[in-house]
Order: sequence, then C-alpha cells, then structure tokens
Amino acid sequence: MNLDLVLASIRPDREEQATIDRVVRELTSRISDILKRDGIKAEPRLVGSVSKGTHLKDADIDIFIVFSREYREWEMESMGLRVGHEVLPEGQEKYAEHPYVSGRYLGRKVDIVPCYQIPPGTSIISSVDRTPLHTEYVKDHITDVQRDEVRLLKAFMKTAGVYGSEVKVSGFSGYVCELLVLNFGTFMETIRYFSTLTGPLTIPEDRELLSQFDAPAVIIDPTDPGRNAGAAISLESLSKMKMLSKIFLSSPSEKFFSMVQPEGEIFGGSRDSTFALFTLPRPDEIDDVIYPQAVRLRNILMGLLSREGFLPIDSEVLVNERVQILVECERGTLPRIKVHEGPPVDSKNAMDFYAKWKGRRRLRGPYIRGNRLYVDVERSEVGLEEVVRNGLRQYNIGAHLNRLRDSLEIIITAEPDSGMEIFRKYLSRQIWP
Amino acid sequence: MNLDLVLASIRPDREEQATIDRVVRELTSRISDILKRDGIKAEPRLVGSVSKGTHLKDADIDIFIVFSREYREWEMESMGLRVGHEVLPEGQEKYAEHPYVSGRYLGRKVDIVPCYQIPPGTSIISSVDRTPLHTEYVKDHITDVQRDEVRLLKAFMKTAGVYGSEVKVSGFSGYVCELLVLNFGTFMETIRYFSTLTGPLTIPEDRELLSQFDAPAVIIDPTDPGRNAGAAISLESLSKMKMLSKIFLSSPSEKFFSMVQPEGEIFGGSRDSTFALFTLPRPDEIDDVIYPQAVRLRNILMGLLSREGFLPIDSEVLVNERVQILVECERGTLPRIKVHEGPPVDSKNAMDFYAKWKGRRRLRGPYIRGNRLYVDVERSEVGLEEVVRNGLRQYNIGAHLNRLRDSLEIIITAEPDSGMEIFRKYLSRQIWP
Repeated sequence: MNLDLVLASIRPDREEQATIDRVVRELTSRISDILKRDGIKAEPRLVGSVSKGTHLKDADIDIFIVFSREYREWEMESMGLRVGHEVLPEGQEKYAEHPYVSGRYLGRKVDIVPCYQIPPGTSIISSVDRTPLHTEYVKDHITDVQRDEVRLLKAFMKTAGVYGSEVKVSGFSGYVCELLVLNFGTFMETIRYFSTLTGPLTIPEDRELLSQFDAPAVIIDPTDPGRNAGAAISLESLSKMKMLSKIFLSSPSEKFFSMVQPEGEIFGGSRDSTFALFTLPRPDEIDDVIYPQAVRLRNILMGLLSREGFLPIDSEVLVNERVQILVECERGTLPRIKVHEGPPVDSKNAMDFYAKWKGRRRLRGPYIRGNRLYVDVERSEVGLEEVVRNGLRQYNIGAHLNRLRDSLEIIITAEPDSGMEIFRKYLSRQIWP
Repeated sequence: MNLDLVLASIRPDREEQATIDRVVRELTSRISDILKRDGIKAEPRLVGSVSKGTHLKDADIDIFIVFSREYREWEMESMGLRVGHEVLPEGQEKYAEHPYVSGRYLGRKVDIVPCYQIPPGTSIISSVDRTPLHTEYVKDHITDVQRDEVRLLKAFMKTAGVYGSEVKVSGFSGYVCELLVLNFGTFMETIRYFSTLTGPLTIPEDRELLSQFDAPAVIIDPTDPGRNAGAAISLESLSKMKMLSKIFLSSPSEKFFSMVQPEGEIFGGSRDSTFALFTLPRPDEIDDVIYPQAVRLRNILMGLLSREGFLPIDSEVLVNERVQILVECERGTLPRIKVHEGPPVDSKNAMDFYAKWKGRRRLRGPYIRGNRLYVDVERSEVGLEEVVRNGLRQYNIGAHLNRLRDSLEIIITAEPDSGMEIFRKYLSRQIWP
C-alpha cells in the first residue's frame, strides 16, 4: 500500500484546485462589492476545509459573511440571505442555526452563510458563529504536510462510515480530524492511537475530563476550553474507529480510503425470526431534526418489545422519504399465559392482591414463590402489532412524530424483503472490510 | 368458629388415649425386661409428641432405647434392632441416622429407635440422640393449656402443607411448634405474630442471629444455643405461614384445621405454553435422600432452560415410584438465530474474534454494537429435548440420579395431562383456601 498513491486519488488535482480558487476569488470579491455598495458592516470570509487546505475532492466551498455585532439577528439574517441570493441566483435557502443560501457556481457547490463577528473567548451565540475561529486556529497551527495527513484521516473515516458530526452519522467532524492530526502529528500515529485505545478518548489525555463532559469522546476545543469538540461522537463510532484501525494495521490496503462505504453482501440463511417494520411519513424537517426523534422512537419500540416479551434482537433506523424503523424479534406472538408478579407476602397490600385475584378470571393462583405472591393471567393481546399500537399510546415520541402517530404503518414478516434498503442495510451489517 | 370444637376434632378421644397409654406401658415394660435379661446397659424412654401430650389423632408412638455411651455404634445399633424385632415381630427395619424398627402394636404405629445417652450441653453425636433432650425440655416448660395450643398450631400447619421438617415439606417440625407456643403463649398469639412478621423469623427476637445462621427462620434450640431448630424451614413455607395467618385472621374458620391439604381445583383455560416432563426411575433410597437431588436437578433444568432461551415459567417436583420434574416454558422451540456476544473492541482478543468469525458460517456479522463485537450464529439444536440432553451432560446431578441419567425420559406437550398427579398439582397451585 502506498499512501502517496492514496493521496493522489483523494486530493483535488491541479485543475480542480484552480476552479476552486477562481470560485473563491470571484465570489468573495462580488460579495465585498455588494456589502460596500449597500453600506453593510460585514465582510466575506472563506472558512471550512477549503480555506484550511484539508479538503477532499468535490468538497463544498463555505463562504461566511461575518457581520458586526451591532446588527439584530433578524437584520443579519435577512441581509445575509439577500447577498447570498444576489451572487447565487439559482441558490436555495437552507437552515442550520441561521438560514443560509446554498447553490452552485462554476459547477461547484457553494454555501453562503451569515454569522456574527466574535473575538476568541467571547461567549458564543451559535456554533455557526464559532466556525471562523476554528478556521483561524487550524490555519495558524497546521503544517503543509499535515494538511495531507488530515485528508487521509478524513478519507479513512468516510470509508468507515464515521465521518461527520450530523446525528445520522454521530461521528468525527472535519475539525475533529484536524485536531487529531495536530495532536498526534500524522495519520499513522492517529490510527495507532485508536488501535490501542481502551475506554473513552480524551484529548488532551486527562481522565478528569470525563467527569466534566460525560461522553465517549472528549476533545477539548482549543478556541473554547469549556467545549467538547467531540460531543457528537457516539460510542459506536468510536468503537468502529478502534476496530478498523486494528484491522488496517494488521492488513493495510488502499481500499480503506475508497471514500464510499462499500455495499456489504446480504447474508442469507434461515434466521427463523420475526421482522417488524414501522414506518411514518417523513415530516418536512432536516435530517438533524428528524433523526433524534426517529432514534427516540426506535428506543421506545425496543424497550416496549423487550418488556412485553417479544425478545428484540437488533434494529435499524433509516430516514428517506419515510421514517423507517426495522426491529427483528425472536417471536411475533406471545403465549396466552403471563406470570403477573404481586407484592411480597409481608407487605401491606398482600391481602388486597390476594382478595382481588381470588375473584377474577385467571389461569392459576394466586400462589406463593419465595416470599412473593404471583398469579398467572391471560393476555388479552398476543400479536406484535396490537401490543405495540396499544403500548405506544402512553409515549411521547417527539413533536414531529407525535403528529404522525396515526399514520404509523406496521408490517410484520418472517421473510426479509431485500428489495427494501432498510432490510439490505440490516442484513448486510458486518465490520467492513 | 369455635376453637374448642376444633380441638375436640383433632385431639385423641379418651378411648384412643387409653389405647396409647396401654401400648406405651406394655412396650416399655417388655423392653425393660429384655434389657435386664440380656444385661444391656440401656433403658426405654417414651419421647416425641405422645410423651409431651402435644400429639394429634393417630400419632405415631416413639420409644427410644437410650444406650450407655460405653457401647460402640455398631453394637448399640445391632442390640437396638434385636430388641425392636423382639417386641414388634412384624416390624420392619428403617433408617434415619441410626437404623430402627417400625411396626404396629394393638393397631398403633410404633417406632423403636436406639440412641445414645447424652447429658445436656454435650457435643452431639446425631440429631436422633438429641430427641430425648427436646422431650425433657418441653415437658419441663409446657403448661396443660399450652399442649392444646400446640395441637391447634400443628393442625393449622398440617392443613397449610407446612408441617414437617423433612426435605419434601421443608416446614415446621413438631418441636418447632412447641417452641413457638412456649415463646408466644398461645396459638392465636403465634398466628398474630406470623401475620405481622416482615422478613425473617428469629426467636429470640435478635437480628444478629441472621448473620450467624443465614436462614429464613432462626429458632434457637434451648437445649443447644448453637443450633437452629428452624433450619429446615424454607422461605416459601415461612411465606405460606405469613399469608395464611393473615387470611385466617381476616376470616377465621374450622376449615383451617381440617388436617388434610385440600385438593385444589384444576385451573382450565388456554395457557398456550409448552410443558416438559422429565422422569427418572426412583432410586432405592428414602425421600430425604432423593428429594434434595430431585430439587437440585430441577434447579439445573430451570437454569439450563432459562440460559438457552426457553423462558421457563414455573416448575413442580414429585417423587413417587418415579422422580418427576415438570417445567412449563413459554416455548419449546428456539429460533435458528442466536446473537453471540463477543469481546469489547478494545480488548486483546477483539482481532481474534473478528478473524475467527470472518472465516466461519454465520447469519450476520461480526458487527459492533456499543463497544462490543457480536455475530449472529445459527443454532444447531432448537428443540427443548435435544438442547436439554446435550446441556445436561456437563452437570453432576447427584450421586443417585447420575447413575440413572441414561434412563431420563422427556415428554414435551402443549396439553397438560390431568390424569397425572404432577400436572394436577401444578395446575391447581393457589393459596388455600
């Protein structure tokens, strides 16, 4: 394996870089002119990976318009959008923490994002406002060689499916990749670190940070020591990096940098289980709003199915035109009998329990086991769908999904449908490669 | 409810008592004569409930032959048996801690039991040898009224199915009943105590005894303060006494003294579960030897069925001409898929697990969940019978049952067979009355 060859395949070539440079030059100049023309106290600033020289092929170009703090938020946002639309006439409005304009210029994807000017150390208004500080910090500290080391790490993480801080991925952001390389020096040293790491990740190495932040990965933001730049990283993403680093070191290969997560083989064989597919229409919201609610619903479903005795095995969440949750269970039907645990015989309500059940329809009891009362009762609902529909009533499944609750569709099947992406994702799950 | 009427029904009438007195008089006199004739240093002694006047109708008569300590054990035993056979020519040999002769005289059941003479406080040779001391202690402390209070308590416990210290019952011995009445004064006070007791029973009331004895019930033996006279009492027997005392106080009735455990109604209704009946030929041993092994086998089976995923609900043990164990499970067949948990990703053997399963037949994985590796494997055995036969191989199920292991019969059925006692016992289980 030759890392220089890998680099050549992931780094923009001369031609691409020339286009990027022209886009940046022309757009910042046009924005400056508009701001001057309209007397707005603001200035354009190239931020993100392109400005730091850590970008991969086909990277987005992020140009921020940094406004004076004297403007109100609505003023800043409306001026920002107006300028954005003027330079990118085909652009569309999107929303992160402030609204912004996203479009194309000379074929490249460009975001024009308004934000406030903030000096380092100031209490932060939003995380978008923090981006220019991150950009400055990395530019001030990174060496030319390290820019390529960051590119290798990003490509490795992208292939592993752990690149990105959005909820859907819950992985490592570009800024985190840069901080890792700044800390460990090179890509290989970073990989060696992950391969031998046990337990949580802390940078700087200081276990006391864990009590302060309570996260699987703590990476102190050098522009704001009270902030964990790795807050988005899930335990599972961290575990994937640990495992893939070991595998890479034991058999290094170019395929770890392919930049696309390979479609895994779909496992066959009779699982002899029950799949329950829960789907809802997709609310008109961005992924980062929907995903946490979908995950919350998944957790509620797993808890409910487990408590009721369907023995859930594993699950998958997918959000596209619908919110989809797949749960595999050991069984789709419960036995009629259910052992209902009563109070200890020496508790105050032992007699009440005894008297109540003596007069009720039951399958057996009340009887004593150990120091407790029990009664065998007959379940009224034994099918997965009816138990879930009934059980879900008592839960708040999130603002946007609550409204769609009545549209919940449930498909129960023993045969996984490999025509559906969520089944393919579920049945191909294995550690790549 | 009139306790005097109850007493009249459970206490021997004049005629029965006259017979008992005659049996005791004639047998002790004949035994004395034989001992004198043969120059044996021993004397007959009436012990047990008859001697203490706490006996119920149809009580056994226990006559011990108390030998001088100068005899060796085999001498004492052979002389004891010889005398027993001479006075009860039709008697049969039985075995407790020493062998003894059991037979009938004037229609009454009589046991002639050899034991050693021991002064109070001596280190004990066997619990049989202790019996005369218990008899003396109770006779010295009990009042005439209290003899009847003991009878009420015994009848109550017999009806509740908790009278007797044999393993099968694991309940309250006659001596314990006497100690309870000596401690609380009357039957009703004893019942009131049980009805309000929370947690373990300790007499005298001293929670520190619990650390010394580690048992649900600690009743210090006044003839040997280092011994727990209530050691045989199981948590379940204690719980039954607590619960039945509450029920009795809330609706007192003569039926609590019927002396036979009422055959409960057999519950119907579809349980929709799987019954597994395990049976073995009965080894040629007494109940107190077989029962602990049967209970041990039951516990092994419950553990095995639970670990393997059959979801056992409850069980029943019955020893008659066969050793029988009934287990009800939520299911009798497992799904093919089994999630096999691997090591944490940051453990030494993570790579071994990964490499091993990458090369093996599997249903999915290895994959990561949280910080661990998992793989979905295919079970080779999914039926209850095959899983149990395979799983049992690694267990020691007790000296006598081990030898019979190959004779283990397993019947799997969804339909309980109410022609069999063990199913009736299981399906009628409820707190009487």
